[in-house]
Amino acid sequence: MTKGRLLRDVGELGFLRRLLPTLRGGRGVLVGAGDDCAVVRGFPRLVVTTDVLVEGVHFERDWQSPQQLGAKSILVNLSDIAAMGGRSRYCLLSVGVPGSHPLKDLELLHRGAQRAAQKASASIVGGNVSAAPSLFISVTVLGMSPRRPLLRSGARVGDLVFVTGTPGDAAAGVRLLQAGLRDGPGRAALIRRYVAPTPRLDVGLRLATAGVPSAMIDVSDGLVQDLGHICESSGVGAIVSEARVPRSRAYRAVIGGDPALALSGGEDYELMFTVPPRRLARLEGLRPRLSCPLTCIGEVVARPKGVRIQDKSGRLYVLGAGGYEHFHAG
Amino acid sequence: MTKGRLLRDVGELGFLRRLLPTLRGGRGVLVGAGDDCAVVRGFPRLVVTTDVLVEGVHFERDWQSPQQLGAKSILVNLSDIAAMGGRSRYCLLSVGVPGSHPLKDLELLHRGAQRAAQKASASIVGGNVSAAPSLFISVTVLGMSPRRPLLRSGARVGDLVFVTGTPGDAAAGVRLLQAGLRDGPGRAALIRRYVAPTPRLDVGLRLATAGVPSAMIDVSDGLVQDLGHICESSGVGAIVSEARVPRSRAYRAVIGGDPALALSGGEDYELMFTVPPRRLARLEGLRPRLSCPLTCIGEVVARPKGVRIQDKSGRLYVLGAGGYEHFHAG
Repeated sequence: MTKGRLLRDVGELGFLRRLLPTLRGGRGVLVGAGDDCAVVRGFPRLVVTTDVLVEGVHFERDWQSPQQLGAKSILVNLSDIAAMGGRSRYCLLSVGVPGSHPLKDLELLHRGAQRAAQKASASIVGGNVSAAPSLFISVTVLGMSPRRPLLRSGARVGDLVFVTGTPGDAAAGVRLLQAGLRDGPGRAALIRRYVAPTPRLDVGLRLATAGVPSAMIDVSDGLVQDLGHICESSGVGAIVSEARVPRSRAYRAVIGGDPALALSGGEDYELMFTVPPRRLARLEGLRPRLSCPLTCIGEVVARPKGVRIQDKSGRLYVLGAGGYEHFHAG
Repeated sequence: MTKGRLLRDVGELGFLRRLLPTLRGGRGVLVGAGDDCAVVRGFPRLVVTTDVLVEGVHFERDWQSPQQLGAKSILVNLSDIAAMGGRSRYCLLSVGVPGSHPLKDLELLHRGAQRAAQKASASIVGGNVSAAPSLFISVTVLGMSPRRPLLRSGARVGDLVFVTGTPGDAAAGVRLLQAGLRDGPGRAALIRRYVAPTPRLDVGLRLATAGVPSAMIDVSDGLVQDLGHICESSGVGAIVSEARVPRSRAYRAVIGGDPALALSGGEDYELMFTVPPRRLARLEGLRPRLSCPLTCIGEVVARPKGVRIQDKSGRLYVLGAGGYEHFHAG
């Protein structure tokens, strides 16, 4: 084995930052690794994405029912399809599982995945089951993109930044689960947002069809970190107003006034997108038909690059390395 | 947790046998779970497949270099594309890995995967790296099928059964690795066949283009078990002549005369296909242009269903539950 630095010394993002440049520019790759989905030549309008849930890292077995776990493995991928403005079509589901796993639970897991796919008009078309020391689920989803898929790279100076729903709920939910605090006002609601996320497929599709966003991403690593991905891909900076980041009633009841989880907590699976001012009227026209609230939380600026946050007193600050980083957490 | 039977009580195949009927017939699914690749409506000529390698199940870390491991994770999927007669185009690579993994090894693993993809004219377009208790690699490959992808279900009574290369070598190789017997005549060759398989993309493509096979599969579970898959999908039986199953010089040197591993050993990644007698002349015309030997090992019969083997004395027998079955092995 090669000696030297370990993966946890640089973390998942650090590793991907080194890896991505070596992956760009393959034959026929229109949008490759580094956006929510890949877009490739040869299969018009195909968008494809993959994600994995690992026991002990993304979930503990007693945090949710097997059906919920199977469903979530599909839903987190549907969120990436939503972030391109696409429709989900086909799923591949690979499960690694110890031989000691209850057969019934494994069947329920698959049933949950199937139902989640069906609800999003998608079919499970392949996959496999393999022995493994602990449970993991790896899913690939193929979707159909709009004529122009919505990328992370289209944000321009002066665009406004919007987010769907109430970020931070899922991060609050997982902390409640970790602490064993399941009962009490608001707690169940927050936990549900972690265990059973709602990918915004319909919203993404409507926004893309109406040609409203200049860039879009789903909030999986945390709002600020994901906005940072848009900034990096678009070569711009952004300012987020702390006070404007929407927080749910449950979040306020359980967490209180601290916006930290709303800014940096992961796994929300909300959509975040930038809108040029000239398209704001079109966005307002759409709003009544959308299934969730939209909130303007900030704007795109030229420099400095990266995301700054404005607190209540108007001061700007930068969030430290936050968001979800499984290797540092461990 | 639900009580009752465990996964290992029915095994991987047993579980899939229960699962597959519930997956068939989704919207737009032309060929779904249960063939080498899926074929779907909406993306003409797309074939897609996924497979996973798990540490301690499919490999041990010191059995091969990180590059070889990364390459193999791609190659086993390319073999499924080959079995449809397709060309590989795009790959998604998800790696689950402990934080204690050497960074350099993880980079080499990705480099090996990239090289293997490039050699097959494919690009890595997405994926992710996630923390996990032990190493696993989940790969999805998208390919371009011929006008009519070669399925498992086309075998007809009277067809002859062919296999490429020399099956059983990889199974012999893994047994040598397990026993720590790496040196000595023939051993390295067998181990190489396990560690660095050669998917038969060019052969599959030429066969499909020439319209020779009636059904095709790649030999990953073991020759008899995979021929059983063709029989089951096609509603036929088959007889394999033990004496005609080709064995490599290394196999004969290390294993001797016993054909068991050639008949039931897994992970060969050779192609097995059935050919109607009227197309045999066309096959002979192709043979000089193929990069590996082809051997006729048997024929398709009406009944009984399933695979029977003819020994040297002409007696027919049925192989017990063999092939690769990770849950029973553990």
